[in-house]
Amino acid sequence: MSISKGPQAFPRSEYIRRISAVKAEMEHRELDALVITHWANITYLSGNITRMLAQHALVVTSRDEEPKLIVRKMCAPGAYHTSFMEKANVIGYTEELVGKHDRDGFDAVIDYLIESGVEKRGVGIEMGNLTSQAVAKFVTRLGGARIVDCTKAVDWVRTYKSDLEIGIMREAAALADAAILRAAEVIRPGVREADAAAQIMVAQVGGGTGPAATGCRPPLLSSSPRTGTPHILWIDDRFREGTHVNMEVSGNRYGYMAALMRTFSLGKPSDRLRRLHEAQLAGLEAGLNALKPGRSCHDVSEDIYRAIGKHGFSKDSRCGYAIGIEGLLTAWVENTASLGRGDATILKPNMTFHLMLGNWLDEEFGYEISETVRLTETGAEALTSAPRILVEI
Amino acid sequence: MSISKGPQAFPRSEYIRRISAVKAEMEHRELDALVITHWANITYLSGNITRMLAQHALVVTSRDEEPKLIVRKMCAPGAYHTSFMEKANVIGYTEELVGKHDRDGFDAVIDYLIESGVEKRGVGIEMGNLTSQAVAKFVTRLGGARIVDCTKAVDWVRTYKSDLEIGIMREAAALADAAILRAAEVIRPGVREADAAAQIMVAQVGGGTGPAATGCRPPLLSSSPRTGTPHILWIDDRFREGTHVNMEVSGNRYGYMAALMRTFSLGKPSDRLRRLHEAQLAGLEAGLNALKPGRSCHDVSEDIYRAIGKHGFSKDSRCGYAIGIEGLLTAWVENTASLGRGDATILKPNMTFHLMLGNWLDEEFGYEISETVRLTETGAEALTSAPRILVEI
Repeated sequence: MSISKGPQAFPRSEYIRRISAVKAEMEHRELDALVITHWANITYLSGNITRMLAQHALVVTSRDEEPKLIVRKMCAPGAYHTSFMEKANVIGYTEELVGKHDRDGFDAVIDYLIESGVEKRGVGIEMGNLTSQAVAKFVTRLGGARIVDCTKAVDWVRTYKSDLEIGIMREAAALADAAILRAAEVIRPGVREADAAAQIMVAQVGGGTGPAATGCRPPLLSSSPRTGTPHILWIDDRFREGTHVNMEVSGNRYGYMAALMRTFSLGKPSDRLRRLHEAQLAGLEAGLNALKPGRSCHDVSEDIYRAIGKHGFSKDSRCGYAIGIEGLLTAWVENTASLGRGDATILKPNMTFHLMLGNWLDEEFGYEISETVRLTETGAEALTSAPRILVEI
Repeated sequence: MSISKGPQAFPRSEYIRRISAVKAEMEHRELDALVITHWANITYLSGNITRMLAQHALVVTSRDEEPKLIVRKMCAPGAYHTSFMEKANVIGYTEELVGKHDRDGFDAVIDYLIESGVEKRGVGIEMGNLTSQAVAKFVTRLGGARIVDCTKAVDWVRTYKSDLEIGIMREAAALADAAILRAAEVIRPGVREADAAAQIMVAQVGGGTGPAATGCRPPLLSSSPRTGTPHILWIDDRFREGTHVNMEVSGNRYGYMAALMRTFSLGKPSDRLRRLHEAQLAGLEAGLNALKPGRSCHDVSEDIYRAIGKHGFSKDSRCGYAIGIEGLLTAWVENTASLGRGDATILKPNMTFHLMLGNWLDEEFGYEISETVRLTETGAEALTSAPRILVEI
């Protein structure tokens, strides 16, 4: 029996538009084929959200309208089910290539490139998403090809969203909002951090009134005296009165993600925490005002740092980054535009950012607030909408 | 203020034992330093479970008892909190290296190697866990060093668990069991797949009577007509009477994971599903009998394939793989021993496997059952303990 197509986030025309943009990049670089291995780039060009842990690649060729997705045989039905492509364009490679020490799924990808006749021509590869061993295999086996590193080529194409993508990100943002509202209900003195995290995930997945999530990353959660570190999950401990909790949650719709940070105080916040909240909130508002087409990422971060400075604080981390499709190595971070000093990227409509005003003043003390935002024609709009408060419990 | 140590899974002596085993490997390869970048290997040698998305490395040197963990400054307090090492051995690099196009955190790692005087000596690097660009940077900047690829060197050391590690994996296994028992309660006709998945995650995290999880990966869940694909999450759909659901859940304690698969039938199972269950269960039991120190992975898989064959079925995927610590690119899979044809690895006590009897007969039809097991002195013991049944709902 043959598996059918599953629910699709976008019409075929949307994918063809994206692929055309990539083909324009390929033509510019005189490439006949582009080998894409980054999960997020594959999701962008195919819709696939099957979890691929074995080797895999999406191959775009100049001559074919649809790309080919080459995955472990076991993943092929799911890849067909979740992607827009025709059956013949999802190729499952044999289980003989799995768990072996001398060969792997990239051999199947290279076999396909050779069979399709591009082995003597221009082949783009995302070298920055491949191990040195994998690159060496491509270079050795495609000895006659002109191989060009195309790391981030697709990443930059997908930096600028379509209105359809913004619509899906709104759905993801609603899930992140639901998670923060749920956190305000379940964070209580005496509750295990793990149990609160589990209930927050229920909201991340089940959401509010909108559609459910299609994936889930556990919340990042640090409570006093660990609030100086943003990248831990919950630990084996319970919440205590008189402490505070920093939290970063996310929503996921068809791989598109929105992220959201808030801080929760169990009891009356300390003066230091209250002042830091006010400074970071001022920074967030300055960022929302500063984000406008035509300005640079650098400019926006300077406005934010200035607003924080007026409140007597400084922040040494960047103020956000482009956000979009989930990647295996990258979570929801798009490694393109960065809201930090020295980033000259010029803002354009429908770029999306995690405007991130976390500030970790010392090892034991930090605060977090953020929004997922998009650039409009004239400014910026927050897609997330949880109240911008220091939540008192 | 300085952050304190958090709850620790293991005593210091356990980490020193592990590091000594790695140093013996280094001596064998005439190396003065080993640069470790694989999350799971870093967890193994340090205890760290901070989520590191920026560049990072654990550096073991022959002269120092403790390794150095070099991470983004923002991650350093969490890395100190969750690891066993002294404060001075967790080094946070500047935010100036984050989100830049021309430099990154590996420059800080290389700076440390140069400062510590190993730049003219033998330096091992896990090239298989680094991009080609990162390897090129190490090779260029450490021009005088003898660089040796040490991919999987630490992976093979941690293949053989201590009794303390088995104890932690039992806790993880109890969480996986709790999730499967919960799945039998929440999978019902008309329920959204997403909502069931969320409740299953609550059990994965909150567990039963034992300690809570310290991390969570969402369950893999495929329902008819998608049961021929093992690697999708839930989708935008509801469960329906007369279908079946395949599920793979996991438990996580301090990064140590146990995985577990079961199949759920909504209504009376079809004859085909019942017969496949019996075949795969026979394979699972054959595997548990076959797993003995001194035998090879190949031998075990042959016994399993034979048992399935007696029931009139065949399975073309491998029968399991070494399981252990969570990695960013690897989930819970250890890419060392593989229970498949041709793997000559000889079994030893306290190796742990995900004994995986999933079988996906066609694109629309598959079945899943598995256990997380450990090798004893004389045979094998399942760490997971959910009933080995085709669950009827």
